[in-house]
Amino acid sequence: MQESSFISTSSNRRLTLKWKDGEATSFEDSVSIEEPIEVKVNGVSIAVIMRTPGSDFELAAGFIVTEGIIDSIKQIGTISYCDQAQEPNLKNVVDICLSKGIQIDQEKFKRNFYASSSCGICGKASIEAIAKNIDKLDQSLAVDGNVLCGLPDTMRLQQAIFSHTGSLHAAALFNHRGTLIRLREDVGRHNAVDKLVGSYVIEGKNVPQKSIMLVSGRTSFEIIQKAASVGVELVAAVSGPSSLAVDLAKSLNMGLIGFLRPPTFNIYAGSERIIL
Amino acid sequence: MQESSFISTSSNRRLTLKWKDGEATSFEDSVSIEEPIEVKVNGVSIAVIMRTPGSDFELAAGFIVTEGIIDSIKQIGTISYCDQAQEPNLKNVVDICLSKGIQIDQEKFKRNFYASSSCGICGKASIEAIAKNIDKLDQSLAVDGNVLCGLPDTMRLQQAIFSHTGSLHAAALFNHRGTLIRLREDVGRHNAVDKLVGSYVIEGKNVPQKSIMLVSGRTSFEIIQKAASVGVELVAAVSGPSSLAVDLAKSLNMGLIGFLRPPTFNIYAGSERIIL
Repeated sequence: MQESSFISTSSNRRLTLKWKDGEATSFEDSVSIEEPIEVKVNGVSIAVIMRTPGSDFELAAGFIVTEGIIDSIKQIGTISYCDQAQEPNLKNVVDICLSKGIQIDQEKFKRNFYASSSCGICGKASIEAIAKNIDKLDQSLAVDGNVLCGLPDTMRLQQAIFSHTGSLHAAALFNHRGTLIRLREDVGRHNAVDKLVGSYVIEGKNVPQKSIMLVSGRTSFEIIQKAASVGVELVAAVSGPSSLAVDLAKSLNMGLIGFLRPPTFNIYAGSERIIL
Repeated sequence: MQESSFISTSSNRRLTLKWKDGEATSFEDSVSIEEPIEVKVNGVSIAVIMRTPGSDFELAAGFIVTEGIIDSIKQIGTISYCDQAQEPNLKNVVDICLSKGIQIDQEKFKRNFYASSSCGICGKASIEAIAKNIDKLDQSLAVDGNVLCGLPDTMRLQQAIFSHTGSLHAAALFNHRGTLIRLREDVGRHNAVDKLVGSYVIEGKNVPQKSIMLVSGRTSFEIIQKAASVGVELVAAVSGPSSLAVDLAKSLNMGLIGFLRPPTFNIYAGSERIIL
């Protein structure tokens, strides 16, 4: 099977609303495609990586080299898409067969790197397989668009108080009137969300219902999944979402705002949550 | 043991050179601290995460909730730093004991998420433990600062040809005269590097020696590790590096450039590689 090309699938269209001054205009926006890829070496699943489809054999080969799973590029025999994968994952599972006689030390890579034992996406719909069991969200939260426009400045001001480096990601929770409830920072986008959620967990509390989560970077599948798992109904981000973030948000009835750069923002999912 | 506070360790100072018009001035820059944290649940290591120290119990608690490892926050009994950890990892290993009678389904989380079996950072120096066996780099590459200043525009121009979404990360390889050799994009920063490296691997070639790697985002420990594993002597980034990225680059004799925003950039490691 031929490797999917570098360009063909690197973006995708999603019906989007652009909000400005209380009015929303629909347009087709391009978002980055995000899909899971499972990398197998000699039939053993060693990692599931969220990636932009295309150059998949390069990604798999580069991954096992830069992660030190093999010592020399000559140890790679063949690379192909798994012939047992089914739609929509025909090109989401890559098999690397090492050269004859070459074996990887499974204990070595298990100890040194962040691997999935097996995600089993082979033959299953990708979202179904990697999505946790998350209930659909309540429809209790609706927010004025002007409130959303005030959030980034509030977050940046609060970040300035804590941060000295200017390069930390942030996740913040606001109520529906735009009042900042709590903020956490980290070098990792996912970690900032986990710290925010965890701050309630260690107090023995649930994350406040009807709240808005604002994240400083882009929104990926995992960010949406983490927010939804604790009942956050509306996620907003300063940058854009991935395709899978949009699709997951829609399937969970979540509101998803991207490019929140006042005086405008884009509504990628749950437009009924924005009061026009 | 008390949880380390949110603010105290979120930034750190590194001696840095600021380059402008062929002259370099030294100053102490603040970089984001990046350190590995190992999360254990009932004594079993379930993940190693690179994070900004501070709010560690929140991170660990939030992680096992948002990843669906436990179903309810009431399932958490106690959270503490591992008392067997040694310097410098006294606060890099967190133990979560679940409430009496609660057990996690190891098979379930193994199937659903990207866990490390055991990284064993407990009691070892963090860089030593998570760093792969990478040789120190050659000292063959030295580059004119003016050449570096030309790289971001060249990369953006090339990205514009391929990308339609404006939100893909890029990794590009240049020769010492600033000529673009090859570029790859992905929603993930690490994936862009892996695709770039892998493009040579599947051609059966080594990554060209004496080349410069430019990445669009920030530089983390893993980016440096991946670049060094294939002999890249100089890494430049449009944004800043983490503390561990700086420390690893220094230990490997790599040149590390941050905030490459012409007409200036910062040299965080390997200043002898920049021709003044």
